[in-house]
Amino acid sequence: MTTTQTKPQVQQWTNLAQQLRVDSIRCTTAAGSGHPTSSMSAADLMAVLMISYLHYDFDNPKNPHNDHLIFSKGHASPLLYSMYKAAGAISDEELMTLRKFGSRLEGHPTPVLPWVDVATGSLGQGLPIGVGVGLAGKYLDKLPYHIWVLLGDSEMAEGSIWEAFDHASHYKLDNVVGILDCNRLGQRGETELGWNTEAYAARAKAFGWNPIVINGHDYNEINDAFSRASQANGAPTLIVAKTVKGKGVSFLENVNGWHGKALNKEQEAEALKELNPSVRSMTFTVQKPTSSQPIDVPASKPLELPRYEKDPVATRKAYGDALKALGAANPLVVAMDGEVSNSTYADEFAKAFPDRYFEQYIAEQQLVAAAVGMSVREKIPFASTFAAFFSRAYDFIRMAAISRANIRLVGSHAGVSIGEDGPSQMALEDLAMMRAVFGSTVLYPCDPNQTAQLVAEMAEHDGIVYMRTTREKTPVIYEVSDKFSIGGSRVVRQSASDQATVVAAGITLHEALKAYDQLREENVTIRVIDAYSVKPIDEETLFAAAEETGNRIVTVEDHWTEGGLGEAVLEAFTQRDGPLPQVVKLAVQSMPGSGTPAELMEEAGISAHHIVQAVKALVKH
Amino acid sequence: MTTTQTKPQVQQWTNLAQQLRVDSIRCTTAAGSGHPTSSMSAADLMAVLMISYLHYDFDNPKNPHNDHLIFSKGHASPLLYSMYKAAGAISDEELMTLRKFGSRLEGHPTPVLPWVDVATGSLGQGLPIGVGVGLAGKYLDKLPYHIWVLLGDSEMAEGSIWEAFDHASHYKLDNVVGILDCNRLGQRGETELGWNTEAYAARAKAFGWNPIVINGHDYNEINDAFSRASQANGAPTLIVAKTVKGKGVSFLENVNGWHGKALNKEQEAEALKELNPSVRSMTFTVQKPTSSQPIDVPASKPLELPRYEKDPVATRKAYGDALKALGAANPLVVAMDGEVSNSTYADEFAKAFPDRYFEQYIAEQQLVAAAVGMSVREKIPFASTFAAFFSRAYDFIRMAAISRANIRLVGSHAGVSIGEDGPSQMALEDLAMMRAVFGSTVLYPCDPNQTAQLVAEMAEHDGIVYMRTTREKTPVIYEVSDKFSIGGSRVVRQSASDQATVVAAGITLHEALKAYDQLREENVTIRVIDAYSVKPIDEETLFAAAEETGNRIVTVEDHWTEGGLGEAVLEAFTQRDGPLPQVVKLAVQSMPGSGTPAELMEEAGISAHHIVQAVKALVKH
Repeated sequence: MTTTQTKPQVQQWTNLAQQLRVDSIRCTTAAGSGHPTSSMSAADLMAVLMISYLHYDFDNPKNPHNDHLIFSKGHASPLLYSMYKAAGAISDEELMTLRKFGSRLEGHPTPVLPWVDVATGSLGQGLPIGVGVGLAGKYLDKLPYHIWVLLGDSEMAEGSIWEAFDHASHYKLDNVVGILDCNRLGQRGETELGWNTEAYAARAKAFGWNPIVINGHDYNEINDAFSRASQANGAPTLIVAKTVKGKGVSFLENVNGWHGKALNKEQEAEALKELNPSVRSMTFTVQKPTSSQPIDVPASKPLELPRYEKDPVATRKAYGDALKALGAANPLVVAMDGEVSNSTYADEFAKAFPDRYFEQYIAEQQLVAAAVGMSVREKIPFASTFAAFFSRAYDFIRMAAISRANIRLVGSHAGVSIGEDGPSQMALEDLAMMRAVFGSTVLYPCDPNQTAQLVAEMAEHDGIVYMRTTREKTPVIYEVSDKFSIGGSRVVRQSASDQATVVAAGITLHEALKAYDQLREENVTIRVIDAYSVKPIDEETLFAAAEETGNRIVTVEDHWTEGGLGEAVLEAFTQRDGPLPQVVKLAVQSMPGSGTPAELMEEAGISAHHIVQAVKALVKH
Repeated sequence: MTTTQTKPQVQQWTNLAQQLRVDSIRCTTAAGSGHPTSSMSAADLMAVLMISYLHYDFDNPKNPHNDHLIFSKGHASPLLYSMYKAAGAISDEELMTLRKFGSRLEGHPTPVLPWVDVATGSLGQGLPIGVGVGLAGKYLDKLPYHIWVLLGDSEMAEGSIWEAFDHASHYKLDNVVGILDCNRLGQRGETELGWNTEAYAARAKAFGWNPIVINGHDYNEINDAFSRASQANGAPTLIVAKTVKGKGVSFLENVNGWHGKALNKEQEAEALKELNPSVRSMTFTVQKPTSSQPIDVPASKPLELPRYEKDPVATRKAYGDALKALGAANPLVVAMDGEVSNSTYADEFAKAFPDRYFEQYIAEQQLVAAAVGMSVREKIPFASTFAAFFSRAYDFIRMAAISRANIRLVGSHAGVSIGEDGPSQMALEDLAMMRAVFGSTVLYPCDPNQTAQLVAEMAEHDGIVYMRTTREKTPVIYEVSDKFSIGGSRVVRQSASDQATVVAAGITLHEALKAYDQLREENVTIRVIDAYSVKPIDEETLFAAAEETGNRIVTVEDHWTEGGLGEAVLEAFTQRDGPLPQVVKLAVQSMPGSGTPAELMEEAGISAHHIVQAVKALVKH
């Protein structure tokens, strides 16, 4: 049963909703593009939320007690920015800069604005990230803030949304409230389910949520739904709001063909006449959280990294060991994994710090989204799975960079050297994929001591930081005291008479060392560089090596030819004047099958034997 | 109500199931790795399916009337291969080559085997691809074949599975039957839902499927479920089978820690004692389809590509026009889009050939999976969305290459030149991503006549073929009679006195032409190459240009620095002997916001002005 509200309350909601509609139209018309109609359908929902349920201090967006408001339907940015204006956070003048060069008000929200947690605009991401924030709220911060996520109905077709539904109920995230703006119309026509709000409710219920179906333009129903949602106990809530796209303007309401279109000046004038044009510059008070106390974080302890001395150890194992050490030292470190923690060795952390480990099951989009959500809450997240399966979450990684998120991704089982499992499990494109992420860092260690040090560096490093680990055990070639850092490299073999340079990383570094020994027997000396920091790459060391070894370079990588270590080395040389050295790239060029690691590396042309041949051919010239 | 079967029938199922278990153990023990326990849980299900419901001619896997059997849980390959042996398709000797170098029996199934439609092993892909096959079966082939998809319970956490559920019911695919082997245990422990078969059933029902919950080891229940599923009318069926991992061997049954582990010789002997070791080499008859007639395909007609003469036209529009022309000429061409067909212009095809267009809504994984499914059925699929959103489906694209699928992907709205919508909508990593796919082709036209010709070439080309199109209208620079082909390039400006070469493609080609004009006024002549085929790239033309223009090359692309056109050009030069030319790469190096296309290209450093500066700096040296 809905409670009928007092008239003044309803009037205030009405005023705000109309102002949000007016402003959504005004700013998009000024911009000449944008999404007024998708903003108008949700205006009533957001008006009630903002005045009566949201707890947020716009003067202090870093207040850890603030609620989180995420527009998963990022194209409704005019509505969001109009809310910021109504809350007094931005001026009307700034609102009118929407979509203009240099404006903070981009076409889709990004954290360039201090009140935006994450970039949205690639649909189906806001809810999974909200689930990440919800995990932090319920299990780490243990604070009563809510995560309000405005969803579009079109994005309910994205599988990632259902990963979020699944995980939110599994983790009993009653702090997460989805608000489904069910306006029936997508970009090019009706959605699959149209106005079948009961179908959405049934799906949500089957996934363990509390669905509440309402008329999204009836203030009493909206208010009642938010009231119930904010008192939810043990399960997340989905408010399924039947709405009308373009609501409030007769010629826009429920009309196909108005998606993503701004009104022209005449249409704007007509629309504003229908709305209440006098409502334009009211400011509405948003309740602040009752506290602004910083969160109590236990003190850090000195980091004691694992030490490796002789027996071969897989870098994936060293990752697990180092992550556990990091967890002991820094209480902000959290970890998550895609149901393969006994392969990635994230299970070492999970066992040691079960309260800071969040199993994400086989749902890689949710895995990365959870890490982004943890970053929003200023944790230090490490997310791991097989490197190949991060390709499942590439859009989330791309968007995480736009979100200015600080996340650490660790992919195991890279390359053909995994052996018998075959190509579906072999990451052969991960270096290319991760290099092509804005501001990313890409690491590929070959030794457990090196891995441990780099894992420690990852925790301190901003942006999207990726580490590729190897399935096979590999020899310990570095001392515990050796130093490695992001952007560095290591010259592993060198002499004054080196005739060529071999640049390798990870598993191929060990092949390069074998090749060094074989070539030495034939009186060919080579320089061997361990380019463990693939991005940024150590240009100076490469330049010096090229100069000192006759401009002859062989790169060797357990990765496709495109976009990996070889191209990173070539790219480095474009950063200096003059012609580039001769570079021979050894990389995987045919589709692998199953076999032993050695058989597959030999077949792929990246074994010691192939390095020897490549060097000899190069030196002969 | 289940029907009780005759004793001989049950005995046959029992014999087959036991043989499948015995062989799953034997071949994994011989391999020393693999997944016997995940095979054993589904052995009863597959025994009944194979003997009593599957219609398949193992001697003629290309028979278009064959059912399709897809192991979405690809790690149960020992079971699949044991079925092939039981059907007489492979020998026991070959079965024992599992996972060995050179064997067709890879760790996870691939179409190296003629009876495997698609590679699986990245979970959550078999069902969405099965939905693609189902669309072809119901709406194109109009044949009564079934698509049987064996699902693992862990993969039910993948969002892509729910995209498939959603689409299968939307398209009323009663030819699709999901068989959920609910054995409770994932790789590292219990799944989220464990043995809560009713929860899976509720989710399936809410997504419009007919769920049937059974005991997956009770032959009568299994038989009854398949019987009902094969008579389904108007909706797909999910058989939710409660099973026991490791079923049949006491020390393996329902024990955590046995995932992906082969038994050693002693364990094998003990296990075979518990099963029926005498059942080893029986052959079972699989029913053939009642027909082997080829499908009637209407005759092709001459292709009449669109022609463009003067007004600027966006390449995305030319794509739509050409696709429609292709549709008129070739009845095997089908199209699908991720709910943005009015932006990609796939809607031109959709309007002209609604029977061959399949809306995939905002579900990019399902979009690519549907194309792969169409490729299985030997159609010529074109799938389109914003280029940025193909990053959502990267794992599906990667796997499609392992599947040896022939699919054409077309991504619009590439780069900062889309303007106001901001970075979430800008593909800036698509070239890197698509280049790093095995055997892929990557095209990036700049002109509508060129686009049309390349779209026609795409239809004839195998593998993963990607075209990047541009949002903005661009001038028509080529004649209708000009010829373009995959692997080609076009020298657009040249003279005997060129001082440098500018390599561009797509939107930046037009900037290069402006730069040419400006430089000419300053008496600097440059060669301009349109590298519309980014992969394979036209090496010979690049080599000649380098030689003839002082080894000075500027590349310019609307893409991040990594993995795109610039790296493709560098890569090309590694294919010849000798040092590389000097290459200056212009690419996007800072995070864009909103603005006009011109403002954003200028800010990104890829406008004519920046090309002019780069050439002048290079020439000065």
